[in-house]
Amino acid sequence: MPFTKNTIYMKLYEQFKTMINENKYLEHDKLPSKRKLAASLKISPLTVQAAYEQLVAEGYVYAIEKSGYYVSKKVDVIQQITPKKKISFEESEKPFIYEYEFKTNIIDTNLFPSATWAKLTREVLAENHHETLNVIDPQGILKLREEITRYIEVYRGIHVDPNQIVMGSGGSQLMHIILDLLGRKQHYAIENPNYLKIYHIFKASEVKLSLISLDQSGLIVDQLSSSQANIVHVTPSHQFPTGVVMPIQRRNELLNWANQKEDRYIIEDDYDSEFRYQGSPIPALQSLDSNDKVIYINTFTKTLAPSFRMAYMVLPKKLLSKYQLLSTYQGCTVPNIEQWIMYRFMHGGFFERHINRMRNHYKKKLDIISEVISNYKDVFMIGEEAGLHFLLEIRRDIDEKVLIEQARQMKIEVTGIHHYNQLVNQKISNYPTLVIGYAGIPIEDIRFVMERLLSSMTIHLKDKQTGNT
Amino acid sequence: MPFTKNTIYMKLYEQFKTMINENKYLEHDKLPSKRKLAASLKISPLTVQAAYEQLVAEGYVYAIEKSGYYVSKKVDVIQQITPKKKISFEESEKPFIYEYEFKTNIIDTNLFPSATWAKLTREVLAENHHETLNVIDPQGILKLREEITRYIEVYRGIHVDPNQIVMGSGGSQLMHIILDLLGRKQHYAIENPNYLKIYHIFKASEVKLSLISLDQSGLIVDQLSSSQANIVHVTPSHQFPTGVVMPIQRRNELLNWANQKEDRYIIEDDYDSEFRYQGSPIPALQSLDSNDKVIYINTFTKTLAPSFRMAYMVLPKKLLSKYQLLSTYQGCTVPNIEQWIMYRFMHGGFFERHINRMRNHYKKKLDIISEVISNYKDVFMIGEEAGLHFLLEIRRDIDEKVLIEQARQMKIEVTGIHHYNQLVNQKISNYPTLVIGYAGIPIEDIRFVMERLLSSMTIHLKDKQTGNT
Repeated sequence: MPFTKNTIYMKLYEQFKTMINENKYLEHDKLPSKRKLAASLKISPLTVQAAYEQLVAEGYVYAIEKSGYYVSKKVDVIQQITPKKKISFEESEKPFIYEYEFKTNIIDTNLFPSATWAKLTREVLAENHHETLNVIDPQGILKLREEITRYIEVYRGIHVDPNQIVMGSGGSQLMHIILDLLGRKQHYAIENPNYLKIYHIFKASEVKLSLISLDQSGLIVDQLSSSQANIVHVTPSHQFPTGVVMPIQRRNELLNWANQKEDRYIIEDDYDSEFRYQGSPIPALQSLDSNDKVIYINTFTKTLAPSFRMAYMVLPKKLLSKYQLLSTYQGCTVPNIEQWIMYRFMHGGFFERHINRMRNHYKKKLDIISEVISNYKDVFMIGEEAGLHFLLEIRRDIDEKVLIEQARQMKIEVTGIHHYNQLVNQKISNYPTLVIGYAGIPIEDIRFVMERLLSSMTIHLKDKQTGNT
Repeated sequence: MPFTKNTIYMKLYEQFKTMINENKYLEHDKLPSKRKLAASLKISPLTVQAAYEQLVAEGYVYAIEKSGYYVSKKVDVIQQITPKKKISFEESEKPFIYEYEFKTNIIDTNLFPSATWAKLTREVLAENHHETLNVIDPQGILKLREEITRYIEVYRGIHVDPNQIVMGSGGSQLMHIILDLLGRKQHYAIENPNYLKIYHIFKASEVKLSLISLDQSGLIVDQLSSSQANIVHVTPSHQFPTGVVMPIQRRNELLNWANQKEDRYIIEDDYDSEFRYQGSPIPALQSLDSNDKVIYINTFTKTLAPSFRMAYMVLPKKLLSKYQLLSTYQGCTVPNIEQWIMYRFMHGGFFERHINRMRNHYKKKLDIISEVISNYKDVFMIGEEAGLHFLLEIRRDIDEKVLIEQARQMKIEVTGIHHYNQLVNQKISNYPTLVIGYAGIPIEDIRFVMERLLSSMTIHLKDKQTGNT
């Protein structure tokens, strides 16, 4: 029942509460008898009783059987340490409205398989409710973990047992489990530049953190070795934001580093690996690891949608017993219904079809972008073989921030690589370099938007084409 | 593309990889020219090129334009610190199969509104995909927070701004945010007995923790005051597991305790408050707080389903700016689709109808249970006015564990209150006391199961009825 003040019994209850609070009734004072009060108010004694019972339930009044209702021990007036001040909410600034956003944390949602998803939802809701709604496995439902095991075996070369898979609500939430598991007294390292999010997760946990520079092959293992770090977070499939794919030598160097000490671990964030536009996928770092050194993380953020909040990790076998101890009192945070839908989505082959469709779709966008860029002077694409973003290096003597502002004037949002490098003052590129997340721009607009972006930055067409401008 | 080894190019790629690994090709050795190899193998030069490009992508080989493909710097053989051992998974013990489970962490899923939920899912998936799938608000979607604000105003007497609401994937996940927010260097206190989960969350965070005893009115504030704790977690609506509803005096005492020092806070876990079977709901502790001292938590675990993993908290205004700083780099963990469905479920009035339906349904079960119990000797119900469990006190000189084992022999699962009291050796009751979570037993079975439970424990019918036994 809501707190409706319109019923007679609630009015009566409120009146007595006020009288008690205002000391019109004192401790152990008897309330009017139910029958007498009912008669005088011309209401039912049951209504009076309901009001009295509510006062009893909340502790204002106590009842003595066959005697009546009495006021309880006086309630202290709340002591205020500071006078109650009105805290008003800050009006948030009106955000600048962009027409087009080159963002790395969104995807193309136009091809999302809504009809299939709705159909699978209906099917899941028609299943045994107890299993769908009541039963929680801390690691996530087994059938989905089995599908994921098969998927990463075929597409990422990872051979594991479903018991090593742990579902979570996104990469950050899994990182929190990993921090619980490995401990906050360890010394961690991350790539620099990297997602700012990863940096802030470690910072919020107040752990020791080293930032390791990159070269053409990704994270510099020598620098990692000279740091005191024993756990490193890397993105070997498609480094964020540089787009570097870590070659096999560097992968082995990294594994060798991990193998040198018992307590060293590698956290492999394979966030973008599904979208590789040439050749076969490159096996995950985890698949090269024979010493239980790699914790592998991936999410459905890029393949399905950022708002899905579904991710998984593969734990080394030797961490499993510690994990299971930790997880006993923590349920899985991913809703069961969503997990069962995802299971059907993978099991029915919809997921593979969806990824293939999206890969082709993104490839088409990328082809248009490459074609546009090839017509312009002084601009070069870096790291476009994989993932949903690339770097646009602009070989001109101009400040990155100026270019970003020029794009903004044309209502196009774009970031520069130095945005991800606020952490230490390290030079990533000699030239201004933009981070172009192209997934969110509709395919029918991509040519026009790329042209508008390049023109906004006063980048000129190549000479052979000047006749056309 | 999967790692299929059936295509010719993948076979070729695998062969070269093996030869390089086995030193049949050394550093800077040139691979056969594409055309020659293609001719000798009678395959297309494009197939050879695909294999070579894959080797390049993975770093085994490098290409020199107009010259050919060469083997990269030798890859170190992985050093193994310990010989690779086979870690086998422990076969988990076959669990004992109960026919009926009196559990406190499940609900009655038979009345779950599947058809409505499937319909709303379809509607949500037909909406603007960008907003549904791409955009993440760290606090949860505003429209849902507005619905929750209205709901807790009407049903819990809580007057707040939607900006104070934070969505999370269950109570535990919100507790982690709270720990980040208030800090792990604070001294916390919890009720004893309590959910073991809460105890373990604090323990895993390695914070200082005091266990505070209960009396008939709930948490003993004097004991809290003499502890060094400055933050306390309480369940005033329906203490778990004792079922005590904290009366107004104790609530005010607790608020006064919090008001005495700037850094004191109360975490109010309102987990069971929707199910109160008599009178109006008792206003939340939060609604009495005028000093920004209460963090209020509630979930949809009991009202919708445990596996929904959707919860919310109300933050005091003075903690908002610190929270917003923390949340910038942490997306909301609840999937957007589920949040939009929940918004429609609340906005359309389905949620209120569902709760009312469930309340009536549980009330009916409880009435049957009360009737059964009233026929038996020496057994008394405690804390049954609210929630989905009550205590069954058995006024006989017998060990709780013996009773639980007797029930187990009849394939009925039930726990005793001392299970929740493993933490310190404190006497909760003079008699064996069972914690009866009745939500999960189907209504058509409840009479029979209660009778079987009581008989299994050799509890006898009252004398006046012996004629019937």
